[in-house]
Amino acid sequence: MGAAFLDMDTMKFLVNHVHCLNELVTSERYAHHDTESLNLFLDAVLDFAETSLYPYFREMDANPAHWDSGTIATHEQIGEVIRKGAELGLLVAPIDEQDGGLQVPFTIHTAANAILESANNHVPGYLGLTLGAAELILRFGSEALRETYLSKMLGGEWCGTMCLTEPQAGSSLSDVQTGAWPDPGGYYRIKGQKIFISGGDHQHTDNIVHLVLARISGAPAGTKGISLFVVPKRRLAEDGAMISNDVSTAGDFQKMGQRGYCTTHLMFGENDDCRGWLVGAANHGLSYMFQMMNGARIAVGRGAAAIAVAAYQASLAYARERLQGRPIENSGKKDVQAEQVPIIQHPDVRRMLYLQKVITEGSMSLVLQTAYYVDRMRMATDLEERNKYHLLLEILTPVCKTYPSEKGIEAVSNGLQVLGGYGYCDDYVLQQYYRDIRIFAIYEGTTGIQSLDLLGRKLPMQDGKAYQLLISEMQHTIREANNLQPLISYSEELNNQIKRLHSVSMHLLEYARKNEYERYLADANLYMDLFGTVVVGWQWLKMAIIAFQKQQEKAVQYSDAFYQSKIHALSWYYKYEMPRTTALAVILTNPQALTLPGPDNF
Amino acid sequence: MGAAFLDMDTMKFLVNHVHCLNELVTSERYAHHDTESLNLFLDAVLDFAETSLYPYFREMDANPAHWDSGTIATHEQIGEVIRKGAELGLLVAPIDEQDGGLQVPFTIHTAANAILESANNHVPGYLGLTLGAAELILRFGSEALRETYLSKMLGGEWCGTMCLTEPQAGSSLSDVQTGAWPDPGGYYRIKGQKIFISGGDHQHTDNIVHLVLARISGAPAGTKGISLFVVPKRRLAEDGAMISNDVSTAGDFQKMGQRGYCTTHLMFGENDDCRGWLVGAANHGLSYMFQMMNGARIAVGRGAAAIAVAAYQASLAYARERLQGRPIENSGKKDVQAEQVPIIQHPDVRRMLYLQKVITEGSMSLVLQTAYYVDRMRMATDLEERNKYHLLLEILTPVCKTYPSEKGIEAVSNGLQVLGGYGYCDDYVLQQYYRDIRIFAIYEGTTGIQSLDLLGRKLPMQDGKAYQLLISEMQHTIREANNLQPLISYSEELNNQIKRLHSVSMHLLEYARKNEYERYLADANLYMDLFGTVVVGWQWLKMAIIAFQKQQEKAVQYSDAFYQSKIHALSWYYKYEMPRTTALAVILTNPQALTLPGPDNF
Repeated sequence: MGAAFLDMDTMKFLVNHVHCLNELVTSERYAHHDTESLNLFLDAVLDFAETSLYPYFREMDANPAHWDSGTIATHEQIGEVIRKGAELGLLVAPIDEQDGGLQVPFTIHTAANAILESANNHVPGYLGLTLGAAELILRFGSEALRETYLSKMLGGEWCGTMCLTEPQAGSSLSDVQTGAWPDPGGYYRIKGQKIFISGGDHQHTDNIVHLVLARISGAPAGTKGISLFVVPKRRLAEDGAMISNDVSTAGDFQKMGQRGYCTTHLMFGENDDCRGWLVGAANHGLSYMFQMMNGARIAVGRGAAAIAVAAYQASLAYARERLQGRPIENSGKKDVQAEQVPIIQHPDVRRMLYLQKVITEGSMSLVLQTAYYVDRMRMATDLEERNKYHLLLEILTPVCKTYPSEKGIEAVSNGLQVLGGYGYCDDYVLQQYYRDIRIFAIYEGTTGIQSLDLLGRKLPMQDGKAYQLLISEMQHTIREANNLQPLISYSEELNNQIKRLHSVSMHLLEYARKNEYERYLADANLYMDLFGTVVVGWQWLKMAIIAFQKQQEKAVQYSDAFYQSKIHALSWYYKYEMPRTTALAVILTNPQALTLPGPDNF
Repeated sequence: MGAAFLDMDTMKFLVNHVHCLNELVTSERYAHHDTESLNLFLDAVLDFAETSLYPYFREMDANPAHWDSGTIATHEQIGEVIRKGAELGLLVAPIDEQDGGLQVPFTIHTAANAILESANNHVPGYLGLTLGAAELILRFGSEALRETYLSKMLGGEWCGTMCLTEPQAGSSLSDVQTGAWPDPGGYYRIKGQKIFISGGDHQHTDNIVHLVLARISGAPAGTKGISLFVVPKRRLAEDGAMISNDVSTAGDFQKMGQRGYCTTHLMFGENDDCRGWLVGAANHGLSYMFQMMNGARIAVGRGAAAIAVAAYQASLAYARERLQGRPIENSGKKDVQAEQVPIIQHPDVRRMLYLQKVITEGSMSLVLQTAYYVDRMRMATDLEERNKYHLLLEILTPVCKTYPSEKGIEAVSNGLQVLGGYGYCDDYVLQQYYRDIRIFAIYEGTTGIQSLDLLGRKLPMQDGKAYQLLISEMQHTIREANNLQPLISYSEELNNQIKRLHSVSMHLLEYARKNEYERYLADANLYMDLFGTVVVGWQWLKMAIIAFQKQQEKAVQYSDAFYQSKIHALSWYYKYEMPRTTALAVILTNPQALTLPGPDNF
């Protein structure tokens, strides 16, 4: 039998067939890999997830990470995952070979992390942040910084974090106040505090390397005066000893979910002895951080999709086993003498499970689509192609972050409902998934922030080029589907949906052209919802095309029932989810302005 | 300042003006009350809520009720609330004077409980179930049962519960197996187990009186063989001593929320010494229980609305104080040198708060509308009028249970999002509301069950008479609004919405006529969503009519800003919520059948 938390067949179907791993490994960049070995890598990751992550998932919730006398106590197994994960190559997988990495396709790296997160979403962040921080140092740090930090971090000996948020600033990074004062010793003295720092402190590694946004004294106001610093928890003294770098843990945040993944409040330089080393050029910190942030946003979408996947598996297993009630016969009666049936036979339970399926698999496909574009960008041999994939990523990243996070909540909530009262009780895992997934719409830029990004920046960028490229990608899929008779009605529907999206986009852009910016952006969240619904509709058409083709070819990788389930899910998505755009378009084109700043009429 | 958990002005506006308390007190049934004293009663309840319930709300979550050596330990304050609540008259408020009650309008009883639940939703259930159980004994029990139990229960000395669910049956009451064997002593021997019993055990009263569904030996299969029994935890021995009645507490369910409100697993007759007393006639238990159940369903909607109200107040207070970010100017830029503004000035935050407002106040209005119909039914002096209100209640009860429960989750989730990361953290209360409210879509018949009830039973009942009566009520409101120029566009829209609802209803009923019952009911949940959205749109039109009239009259009960806020909320609901029906109608009239029992294609 498969894993309790993941349908590995679907994951491999997505990676290998829908998102064409075989195309990636024919490129020069990934030619040293082949699909077989990469699939074996995913199998090894699944094995790791089953043995080292999943068995600790409930425990980590029941025994949350917590502040204790100036440090954060986290579950012991987290140390084990960091060590074994490093051995398995998870910290070097996407790093270039020239930098000591395995240079595996980002698509594989993404799938591997999704497998881990499906098993236990409380742990992979410790690895992910370490890798992200290391990548920033690798990319923008000086040779000295690279030498000091990289091998330790990529070897899993030291962990990493990113420190953006401050109490007074929240999402408003313009208001970052942590200060940095240049010291003749070649470093900066850092002073300030950061909150909501994931993985900010724990007992598992000798050092934790913080990548900190701070403002060099005298720097301009706003985001243009923000610089990036490496600020380790411990630094190397002149005598070679590791000493405290005056980074202290003031407290932690106890959360509703993801309780094994610590969220900390850090103080830098309380004793005026905190040193930071500038990464790259002064005042360019935010643009560097956003290199990491784009990856982090894809990772947030991936994590949400992974939780939704796990919740779906849990609901499905319950619905297949739980006997309750009987079918309503066509007469409208029930035969109370008959045996009870598994609840998966009840239409409303099926509706909830299909909803889970289309959201979770659609989300995972969207995440892997985004990862595939990362690979295509990295593989690109000319500037135009590179730019094409860069733009596709620009427009798709906020959607990739948001759709799985927002719709994932809905999927998991329906999954909980499948179990009835049991879903709400600690005896079953659904309530944990329900609590865990709620943070994803907040992490790394809330849905509001992502939506402003999509509508305010990404849609109009380069005269709409990113947007047009994405539509071309969708139209390419539509043309493919037009060759397959049973899919034509869906390709036509997707085409209509794109037209609707386009007309709404044009309607909104008109406000921007008239310099009515607040109005332009007021309903950005609803625009995101519309956009994501169409994009995931595209993903379902892609999945169905492959399923249909493989079914026709009688390809033996998967069963006929497997292919059929994907085609059924396409129909389901187009019946139940796509029409939501009808309402969204009505709202978005309604000329009444009802949310602009104004009187406190609440 | 007002209470932290409730806008009392809105509550009184709804009770007194939208739902016409003055009409109720002119009836013979309620003539012994006047609006002033009833409003003072609500003030006293608010005071009780502020002093005895709200201060313990977070504590009860942090220290949940739990099983301990065969009994359930609950928070000490619960005993205090039961005693003081009884003193305040909360256990006798809706009981007729002839039965020793205060005979206050059910509308007032409903508002009073909503106030308590806004303050702390973990406690009022102990009172509510006691009252519900007492009402069943009062209505259907023998003189002996009434004498033994009523004064103790209504005095708050003994609590009550209702015991329906069994492990193997869940929502399928046909499968209740708890057995009852007649004994020559005039009682029955009861044996079986019940799960998910709210308030099933605690240390606060000398006795707990369970109303238990069980099957008398030899009774028919299905729901037609179910009888209702009074089964106390302790019974009176022949010598007058209170002795154990062989009801034991096997365990409890630890829940994601409402953790102060215990949920227990009870064993009846493990030592073959559990006695139960039949209520009413044998095999009619379910119809009696449903008398209580209808009230319980209104109470569930009320509780969900109350939590959403409290969450709205918490989000609103935060948004008014929290400084973060700056307005986007019409040029699309922000002035980073300017002071940060309260987040309530950001359009997306406003959108979330208005969404909370329209759902919470719309839900509370719907609940009070339902309560008002209960009063009208009780006041009715002729059979036709009584039947009219009975039918209105039949069709509105499942909606009243479901809309606040389902949309309340959405409202609270948006409220949590207003706080960003803080909303997810234990330091703020939003995460507790988010966890607490999730149970309401499950309690007392899940949303799936309520939706089958609405579409499968209530819509077609008496040839659609209940449905037609409800539409007439809505059309009455439309006619009123047609006389008020600024509201005409909304009354026209409501009229269109009713037409859409009607055409969907007719479309679905056609399946029933063709004896395609499974198909008819397959999308009942979506029909419920459509129905509820229209019904709450009606409530908003009612609220706006009163607000507009009072504004015109320059009525001084409330400020002009208060009236204006209700009219703005109407516009908001009609722009942002009503169009959802467009999508729902498309889905509900789509002829594809994709959720009927069939292959396991998940």
